[in-house]
Amino acid sequence: MADKKKRRQRDPGSDDDTNQPFKSRVKPDPVILQTLQKLTDSVRAAVEASSSSSSKTLTLADLSLSSTCREVTDLSLSSVQSSIESLTLRIAHSILSGNGFAFDVPSRSAANQLYVPELDRIVLKDKSALRQYSNISTVRKATITARILQLIHQLCLKSIHVTKRDLFYTDVKLFQDQTQSDSVLDDVSCMLGCTRSSLNVIAAEKGVVVGRLIFSDNGDMIDCTKMGMGGKAIPPNIDRVGDMQSDALFILLVEKDAAYIRLAEDRFYNRFPCIIVTAKGQPDVATRLFLRKMKMELKLPVLALVDSDPYGLKILSVYGCGSKNMSYDSANLTTPDIKWLGIRPSDLDKYKIPEQCRLPMTEQDIKTGKDLLEEDFVKKNPGWVEELTLMVKTKQKAEIQALSSFGFQYLSEVYLPLKLQQQDWL
Amino acid sequence: MADKKKRRQRDPGSDDDTNQPFKSRVKPDPVILQTLQKLTDSVRAAVEASSSSSSKTLTLADLSLSSTCREVTDLSLSSVQSSIESLTLRIAHSILSGNGFAFDVPSRSAANQLYVPELDRIVLKDKSALRQYSNISTVRKATITARILQLIHQLCLKSIHVTKRDLFYTDVKLFQDQTQSDSVLDDVSCMLGCTRSSLNVIAAEKGVVVGRLIFSDNGDMIDCTKMGMGGKAIPPNIDRVGDMQSDALFILLVEKDAAYIRLAEDRFYNRFPCIIVTAKGQPDVATRLFLRKMKMELKLPVLALVDSDPYGLKILSVYGCGSKNMSYDSANLTTPDIKWLGIRPSDLDKYKIPEQCRLPMTEQDIKTGKDLLEEDFVKKNPGWVEELTLMVKTKQKAEIQALSSFGFQYLSEVYLPLKLQQQDWL
Repeated sequence: MADKKKRRQRDPGSDDDTNQPFKSRVKPDPVILQTLQKLTDSVRAAVEASSSSSSKTLTLADLSLSSTCREVTDLSLSSVQSSIESLTLRIAHSILSGNGFAFDVPSRSAANQLYVPELDRIVLKDKSALRQYSNISTVRKATITARILQLIHQLCLKSIHVTKRDLFYTDVKLFQDQTQSDSVLDDVSCMLGCTRSSLNVIAAEKGVVVGRLIFSDNGDMIDCTKMGMGGKAIPPNIDRVGDMQSDALFILLVEKDAAYIRLAEDRFYNRFPCIIVTAKGQPDVATRLFLRKMKMELKLPVLALVDSDPYGLKILSVYGCGSKNMSYDSANLTTPDIKWLGIRPSDLDKYKIPEQCRLPMTEQDIKTGKDLLEEDFVKKNPGWVEELTLMVKTKQKAEIQALSSFGFQYLSEVYLPLKLQQQDWL
Repeated sequence: MADKKKRRQRDPGSDDDTNQPFKSRVKPDPVILQTLQKLTDSVRAAVEASSSSSSKTLTLADLSLSSTCREVTDLSLSSVQSSIESLTLRIAHSILSGNGFAFDVPSRSAANQLYVPELDRIVLKDKSALRQYSNISTVRKATITARILQLIHQLCLKSIHVTKRDLFYTDVKLFQDQTQSDSVLDDVSCMLGCTRSSLNVIAAEKGVVVGRLIFSDNGDMIDCTKMGMGGKAIPPNIDRVGDMQSDALFILLVEKDAAYIRLAEDRFYNRFPCIIVTAKGQPDVATRLFLRKMKMELKLPVLALVDSDPYGLKILSVYGCGSKNMSYDSANLTTPDIKWLGIRPSDLDKYKIPEQCRLPMTEQDIKTGKDLLEEDFVKKNPGWVEELTLMVKTKQKAEIQALSSFGFQYLSEVYLPLKLQQQDWL
């Protein structure tokens, strides 16, 4: 008692243990590790069962969908090069035979998108449109398409990567603004049937990774347990990433920087063997590809820690089911079976998050939440529907950082261990 | 001739050598390396001369300024802790003797800022204001200040780092919004006379580094030549960075991601031994501290590659002279003697950047440019004044990426080598 009083005097702030909900419920680490081992084993078993049995991982081809769908695959640089060359030959033939030329470009509009529950991702249907050179309304876009094809062909010959911005600047006069070259670049991916990364056009890197992972980046071996607090920047070009090895039990996908820093400094991955990854907000293509590669090669469960607001769930859905803009590439960009660990709307009361750390949802937030409730990928998970309904009903949201109100390390020392121990994911 | 024709046929685009201005002027690498060695030697000699002679590096104390100035230093965690404890004791005394209490808080307003040409950076003058608890207009801020002091004290006891966002969430009810806790955090730095990093409050990491540098991050040795294309994320907490070693001849400070990726993929640092660093836009505190530490420990010249627009120069100035908001810490945050390598306004014509890759400056751009011309740190460098005057006169700006109009690798294969060879920096 005297001891407790003394502690209160020394440290009267929010870090007093008595203020930390559920701290006493956290069991010793070996118990929690056992729980995690079971999760990992079940994920591995499922992956192996599906790959060894005759019914291997479901693909679009396995489904008898009413509409045909279009998907792209990773192609080698030389395949991309020869695809462009044969396309060009076909065009030359067409011109020489007096027919002019046109590109047959897949439509990427919302009307041409389809959520496939069996695959749990958005795919592109097969509607396409002719982009004629001899038509005043399409001549500009046809020209841009030809120019982008030529530039990609150069990248193949040189075997280098460039950014979308670089691409734009090679011919500003023609492209006029970057949205035009960006959009045609996606068209070209679809037309050639290859992923955008196969075209060697990359986005700026944003994500970082730290924890129990070793991989090679452009020939260099990277040990992510030895990356200090800063972590390793996720490489922009996934095709040069390989040789992944890990003794982790799970992947912890974190929405934001601040939570990532807390976990990296506390070396959370040493206490609970895991790989911690974040795109620092909106998921970029490089981080999405990297997460998928980890999940597929290492066969690990993925647990997501996002804000308790509609955007947190939206971000989770982009990792899991893909974005509409790049639905043609959803097979390569999405990571199946991501579990929603927290912060979930029901956690707000359960973990007694103080009222002042919760924020009222704006009209826009509530609309986004309601829209999400109509999305197929949410509907198929009753747990998610329940949580989202609660969020929209209470009109309250909270950031991961709200847990700091119980002390800076509450996230790594109580909240996450308890979540893992209780298998409290959806 | 036949060979040339063949090449044209194979690669008719912008990468044709004949379209690349000055490609033929680039001398063999050993010649350029010799030039760089001279630059490095002169920087080292200057640093050593100033540190060995009786007149060591100039500090505020060496100058007889008309107004006294306030500067902060790096303090150990235990010093910060005891500073807070003595401050608290003084306050307790004041309360017990019936005088209530007040904090003496340095003013960080524009009127209290001073550019010191001898130091080439902005410093804070010594005006301060009493923040009384017993005054209705200051009671809230006084309370926030006391709370922040208490939270920092906790960080000292635990020896952990948190973000500003974490700090805010520990007491949302009191702070109301994050700008209030952020601003008082800077006040507390000033009051205690220590840097913000000494308080263990860090900003989210943004920067990356790649090239000829080895350093330790939180105890792990990091070899930046073995970081693939992604590079190493710059650690958010500089106090855990140390043991820097390098055989580089210079540091290349790059404004943006796209140029950084180009140089990292081409392993530019192997051809011309250097360290490449970028904050991906606006310089954050972690990258500024890291750059300064490299410059100071390795005694290397710093060459900057920024967009040719007022913001490029502004960014350069933040690295070089500091930002007004954190002028109290300019001694620790700024890197002296950064050279403006490019893209400079005069490069636009010199390197024949096509008209369509130049962008017209907006009214706001022009105003920012004119404002910069009035700033002391620009005025003291006649070369910069000349360039900036040209920019404002021609009303044209250009991004680094504009060089891609001569081929994706023009930056790394022609522009930068030639710049280095001609010692074309200001």
